[in-house]
Amino acid sequence: MPIKTIAGEARFSREKMAKASLFETPRFFCDVYGLEPGQAQKPHAHEGADKVYVVIQGSARVRIGSEDAVVGEGAVAHVPAGAEHSVENPGAGRTTLLVFMAPRP
Amino acid sequence: MPIKTIAGEARFSREKMAKASLFETPRFFCDVYGLEPGQAQKPHAHEGADKVYVVIQGSARVRIGSEDAVVGEGAVAHVPAGAEHSVENPGAGRTTLLVFMAPRP
Repeated sequence: MPIKTIAGEARFSREKMAKASLFETPRFFCDVYGLEPGQAQKPHAHEGADKVYVVIQGSARVRIGSEDAVVGEGAVAHVPAGAEHSVENPGAGRTTLLVFMAPRP
Repeated sequence: MPIKTIAGEARFSREKMAKASLFETPRFFCDVYGLEPGQAQKPHAHEGADKVYVVIQGSARVRIGSEDAVVGEGAVAHVPAGAEHSVENPGAGRTTLLVFMAPRP
């Protein structure tokens, strides 16, 4: 069955934020991001595609446009298509994010 | 900022599975489903749209096509477009699911 676990798929690297793909079709992708303390995904934007970050473990500083917030486990952030955004692990422990994008770029 | 928390949005009803909308655009929706013990979403299918269930709290019996599995917190299930699927809370406690669909039907 097409079922995976976040803990089983999450990857971490000392070099940089690690991405693992769970599922994808032309309509969406679902990834897990693993961030060691201080690691980040740099500001970028996706024209025509919406992104959602879900904080599964740890905390995240999410920037969307000119605003930012530090959020914890259970937070869900929506990055509207075209909006510049970034995410960073501001804490002392690991951060695990579940990430959706629709459609797949 | 477009940030919500799963715990803050989740709803439960003695009548039936409760849905709460977190975010939606023409490209996707993100909902939270709250299921009391024994509650279920009946078998159905979405032509042309993929769905993902994420088990946030409790357990879920997920059926996709002719297969089913009982999964716990941190499980992510992909329902391919057109596949018949259903979900049920088989446990003694509440089940909270994060649900994505792309595109929005």
